[in-house]
This record gives sequence, C-alpha cells and structure tokens, in this order.
Amino acid sequence: MKAEILSTGDEVLLGQIVDTNSSWLCEKLKEIGIIVQQINAIGDDKDTISKIIQAISQRTDLCFVTGGLGPTQDDLTAAACAIACNDELKLNDQAYASMEAFFENRGYVLTKANEKQAYLPSKSTMVENHNGTAPGFFITLNQCCFFFMPGVPSEMKLMFEHEIKPQLFNTYELDDFIFMEKLTVFGLGESMVGSLLKNFNSEFPKMRLGFRASFPFIEVKIVFQGAKAFATKATKAISKAKQWAIDRLENKVISSDGLSMPEEIGRLLAKRKQTLAIAESCTGGLISNMITDVAGSSEYFLFSATTYSNEAKMNVLKVNQDTIIKNGAVHEDTALEMAKGVKKVAGSDFAVSTTGIAGPSGGTDEKPVGMVCVGIAGPKRNFSKTFIFPFEERDKNKKIFAAAALELLRREIVSL
Amino acid sequence: MKAEILSTGDEVLLGQIVDTNSSWLCEKLKEIGIIVQQINAIGDDKDTISKIIQAISQRTDLCFVTGGLGPTQDDLTAAACAIACNDELKLNDQAYASMEAFFENRGYVLTKANEKQAYLPSKSTMVENHNGTAPGFFITLNQCCFFFMPGVPSEMKLMFEHEIKPQLFNTYELDDFIFMEKLTVFGLGESMVGSLLKNFNSEFPKMRLGFRASFPFIEVKIVFQGAKAFATKATKAISKAKQWAIDRLENKVISSDGLSMPEEIGRLLAKRKQTLAIAESCTGGLISNMITDVAGSSEYFLFSATTYSNEAKMNVLKVNQDTIIKNGAVHEDTALEMAKGVKKVAGSDFAVSTTGIAGPSGGTDEKPVGMVCVGIAGPKRNFSKTFIFPFEERDKNKKIFAAAALELLRREIVSL
Repeated sequence: MKAEILSTGDEVLLGQIVDTNSSWLCEKLKEIGIIVQQINAIGDDKDTISKIIQAISQRTDLCFVTGGLGPTQDDLTAAACAIACNDELKLNDQAYASMEAFFENRGYVLTKANEKQAYLPSKSTMVENHNGTAPGFFITLNQCCFFFMPGVPSEMKLMFEHEIKPQLFNTYELDDFIFMEKLTVFGLGESMVGSLLKNFNSEFPKMRLGFRASFPFIEVKIVFQGAKAFATKATKAISKAKQWAIDRLENKVISSDGLSMPEEIGRLLAKRKQTLAIAESCTGGLISNMITDVAGSSEYFLFSATTYSNEAKMNVLKVNQDTIIKNGAVHEDTALEMAKGVKKVAGSDFAVSTTGIAGPSGGTDEKPVGMVCVGIAGPKRNFSKTFIFPFEERDKNKKIFAAAALELLRREIVSL
Repeated sequence: MKAEILSTGDEVLLGQIVDTNSSWLCEKLKEIGIIVQQINAIGDDKDTISKIIQAISQRTDLCFVTGGLGPTQDDLTAAACAIACNDELKLNDQAYASMEAFFENRGYVLTKANEKQAYLPSKSTMVENHNGTAPGFFITLNQCCFFFMPGVPSEMKLMFEHEIKPQLFNTYELDDFIFMEKLTVFGLGESMVGSLLKNFNSEFPKMRLGFRASFPFIEVKIVFQGAKAFATKATKAISKAKQWAIDRLENKVISSDGLSMPEEIGRLLAKRKQTLAIAESCTGGLISNMITDVAGSSEYFLFSATTYSNEAKMNVLKVNQDTIIKNGAVHEDTALEMAKGVKKVAGSDFAVSTTGIAGPSGGTDEKPVGMVCVGIAGPKRNFSKTFIFPFEERDKNKKIFAAAALELLRREIVSL
C-alpha cells in the first residue's frame, strides 16, 4: 500500500518550525507496516493545497494531512479539500456537537471563529479530536483515502493513535500485531551499532531493526509484526532476537528495556532503596537536571552541588585546598574528593562527580577541551577515572561528560 | 522566484530522523528573499528521485536538494540526477582533486568507495565541500537550477553559506543587504506577540517580521532587505522599527539584542562584576545547567545547590527546620531562606532559588502542580514570590519555573 504525508502551514516553509509531525507519523505508520513514500510540505494557500491533493490522489492509496484546521483566516485545509473533491463545506452536526462538549467541559463559550472548524466537506466523515477543538475528517478521492488531522502535535498524535489507526485496521488488511523491544546503547556510534548488527535481517528475516540516535545515546528497536494468533511464538522469537543483539553489542547496552540512562539509574536505586548525591563542575547541573527529569526521582535523589568556584568545592564539598593547589581543579584526586564530600554532606549511598574542560576555550596540551575526571563514591569503594573525548563544542562535551559519569555510576551500582 | 526543497533519504521516511535541514534552508533562503513553496521528502530510490527531479523542473526556478551524495550503495542522488537530465556520470577532476586534498589533510587514504563521490553528472558544475568528503554540484534542467548538497547538516550548512549563497547572489538579482535585529520575549504566547505587533507591516512596509518560539521564550526577528547603498538609512529604519516593537511588547522584552535569558543575565553580571549562586528544588538543576551552557559563565557563576531532600535544604542552605515544619518545603518563606542561605554559602552578590511542584503528581488543592515559589537574595534586599502556571507536564513546568525565576532575578539586577 502506497502512502504519502502532506504537511500544510507557512511556519514550516518559513523555517519557523521543524516538521516533527511528519517524522512521528512515518515512524508510527512503519510500525503498522505502512511505509511512507513521500512527504510534501506546502504553505497556507488554498489553491496550492487543493492542487497537491489532486496530484497526490492520482498516485497513492493513503495520504495523511496535517495542519490548517484551526479557527483563523489562514486555516484553509478543509476548504482546499472541498475544492479538490468537487465538494462543498457544510456544518457537520457531529463535529459541532463534539466541539460544544469540548468547550462546555472546560467552561468556555464556543465562538463564531471556532464554529468555522465544524464546517467539513459534505462527503467526508468526521474524526473526533480528544485533545483540542479542531475535528479531523477523512474523505476518498480517486481511490486515495485522505486523513485530515490538526497540526498541533499533541492533538494530531492522540487523533492518530485513538481514531485513525483503528480506522486503518478496520478498513485495510494490516498486520494486526506489533511487538517491539528497545535497547538503549551508550559508547558506540550509530554506524558501529549498525555494523555490529548487520546480520540481523538474515538471522531474523521476520523482524525489523530501527535506530534512533539522541547524542550520545542510541536507541535500537526490534519490531515484530504479524497476526495476533502468533503472539506466543512472536514473544519467544523477539526475545531471542533481543538476546542476539545484546550479545553483539557486548557491554554497551545500558538498558534492555529501552529506559534512558537516568531512568535506568533511578530504577536500580529505587529497587535497592539506595540514594544518590551529585557534585558537578564542568557538567554545570546537567546531570542533576537529567536525574530530576524522571518523575519520582525525589525517592532516591537527595542533593546535588554545582561547584564552579574552587571556594565552593572547598567550603561545600570539603575538597582539600592542597589537592587543588597541587593538581588544579581538573584532576582525578579533586573528582574523588568531590564525590566523597558530596556523599558525606547528603548522607547518600552513592555519589558521582565531574570536573573537566567543556570548552570551547580553557584547554591546554596537558588538559585539553574534552577531558573530564569522574569520581564515584559508593558503599564499598571510592575511585575516579579520566576520559578524553574528541569534541570541541561545549554542549556536546557537557552531554557526553554527563553520560560517561552516569555510566560509571551505573556499572558501580550493578556490580554491588 | 519560485523555489522548492527536495530532501532525499530513507531515514526521514522511516521516521528515524527529523528533517531539520529543510527548515534551516527555508529560514536562510527567506533571509535572502527566496520563499520556499514546497518541501518534498522521498526515499533512496533512483527512479523516484529522478522522476521527482523532472516534475520539479517543470514547476519551479530553484531547487535545493539534500542527501544521497555519500560513498555507500544507497547514495543514489547523483545517478538519479544524471538520468533526469539525460546525462551521464563522469569522474569530475576538480571534485577528485578536492577530495584527495581533504583526505591528505587528515592523513587518510582515499578509498574506492569514496572515489564514487567524485562521479558527477557531466553537465554539472562541482561545488566545494569544506567540511566533508562529498562534493556538491549544480545543474540546470528546464530552466530550473538544482543545487545538490550533502545530507549531513554541518556539511550542508557550510556549503550553502560559503558556496551556494554567493553563487545565488552572482546569478540572480537578489537583495544584497540583510539587516536583522532580534528581540527575546518572555511572558507572552506566540499568538499574543503576533497580535501586539499586528500593525508592523503597515507601519514598516519595507521590513519583515519573524517569530520563533522556544518554550517559554519567543524570538522576534526584524529583517530589512535592500541594496547595500542604503545601509545607513536601513540601520536607522530598523532601529525605529525595533523601538516600535519594544514599546508594544511593553516590559516583556528580556533582551533587545536577541540574547537568551542566561546570556542576558551573564552579560548583566559580567558588566557589573557581580556573581551568582543558585538554590534549586523543583527545577532540579535546570537553572544551573542553563547558566553554565553559556561559555565563560565561570566568570560570574559560583555555586548551585539542588536540594531535593529537606535535610539538604537544612544542612547545606541552613533553612530553618521550623520554617519547613510550619509551611512545608513549597513556600515563599522556604524559598527566601534557600536564596539567603546559598548566597551566604557561595559568597555571591545575587542568589535565586526555586521550590515548587513540577508534577506530574504531588499536587494538592492548596499547592497544585504548576506552583513555584521563587526567592531572590541581592545586595540590597531579599524577597520571594509565588507563581502558578497551568501546565501538567513535568518538563514544561521545569522550563517555565526556571524562566520565571531568572526573569525575577534579571529585573532585580537591572533595578539596582
């Protein structure tokens, strides 16, 4: 089955926003076996939209349209669709009732501008919007079924998942069982992960592999699709494929359940009822921010100190002045004392610390930009380690320093 | 002049990556007066690429193509272009020499796989790649000029800025003078900013307005385009337009030079030779991370404490146990003591603190999710203030809490 995406709206063409809707839709459609063949993005122009709808209807089976269903003057998609389909806009009672209920629930009054959103092409079928005012709709032109959705990502995603996906399953013969496992990888580039898993398709021809890089982590997805009847078989098969991938990626898999690094560390600490403190210099609060992005982190996270000044390192973390004078702030001994100090201040079970050169300036031959010393203090031992990364960008270095520090901590927690 | 973008590569259609290249190109082209009318994204298929090149050549003047110039089997764009143009691939001596030099500089040897990249359509002109191995090229088909660039963002951007943009100026009558001013706005939604500035076009018909939202901040761009001869006049005109916009946005403009919030605070502190300490609870290190994202922040940033536990608030920041017992951790009194405490510990001139409910759970009727107390301690006075935001998402709340706290700090610094 051929599919395309049509994204409407001046914002994308003027470079004001990045079209994340299309990438999300591509991924979701791929999961149910529909591979998108073309993405088209055009501006808020009725003529252009209606012409491209006609062109697409000649060459594909399914088209997912986003944007232009709002209440303002430049929301023209429904009108353009009516023109393309030689149809007219008509007040859709179901859409109006649904909007009325939406407004009532929130104690708002439906305005004339909003009423416009209930005018849909008369031959179309309305699709419920559970997360906003603009109803969606679908309509067929020249054997191509067009699904119209709002451009607001949260509304579009809910509409696709709860309304359009079931509709696709009802109408087309799609693989009706999706089983997915995710691995989170740290310490390998995307091309290296690809190369280590290059025999996946010949070993497991019924499954698909997907990658998503979010520096410095790589998410590996293993997807199985098939009829529901094969669920037990599929579960076994995908477990086998997952183990095969883990074996090939050796010890670079930080979570075999697709958790992020801070989620995995949170899971480990919560399970063990242990607590964490953090002392940061070059990472500047990033590690603390990552850890506290996880809901419920107050269960195991106690305290973090970002000690940029040497005084703060000495006063708050009780780093010895001599250690800093002798070695400088960026040194394994300083990192070690920072970790031990913050563990003591917070009364935690574990502590992790960083001190390094994030750049872009401040590097020397001996201590270049990209160098970080990580300290770990735990229930059984304290140690520190130096890493040197090849990056010059401050934000990239902060990210990989934080990841390296958390990976050292993760390994220490797991080893005990 | 009509323009389109063609983005090639399976990664986008499989939902593995978001097409940020197209949005970047749209913005850069808009700055030189070229408005993109359509973005097309298709997969790595020679036939499909060659067909869409032909289709585009019939309807537009300029087309910017990204991706598919690499050394591997699935890099097919040059071959597809040759087919579309009824041309053939030929070893381009200039491209080969340029690649050879690139490899030599880095001490690598040019492989057979790389050599493939030097084969370009014989009728095309090679475009230098200063940041990678794949040369670009341009070629004309049916009055439409196609510019082919690599898909790697860093390579594409450099090639566009240094090679293709000058080429566009040489070939077409483009406005050759771009003057831009940026304002950073906090405390207004994008639609409200748009509405406050809605008369801009009638007041300043020769200028253009652009918006870019990066929650919770809005960047407003004022762009003037014209011949170089009018530079002095343009400078005056754009200053006037900028002041007009600032007046309408009242006190919501946090930087009239387009600096980010942490950059502006850094600028203010560095200018005054004053220093900052931070005490965070609900923002969990985000404020510290934002402040330290600015290169050179060690000049004014001394210390930050993320005190999630009450013990850390008491031990490190010397918050009174009674204050917490009486009011709870989320209270203006606690925020005030946190700010005063961290200022004392760090010996800084200013301190800012946050304590609140980021969610998604933990809210009560009295202290709902979205509530934050911000404390400020400064050279002249200490105070605290409560804000309640309507968001339920943890990451959104962390972001707006951090912005609100920094805005309160910024106003205090400026007022002294």
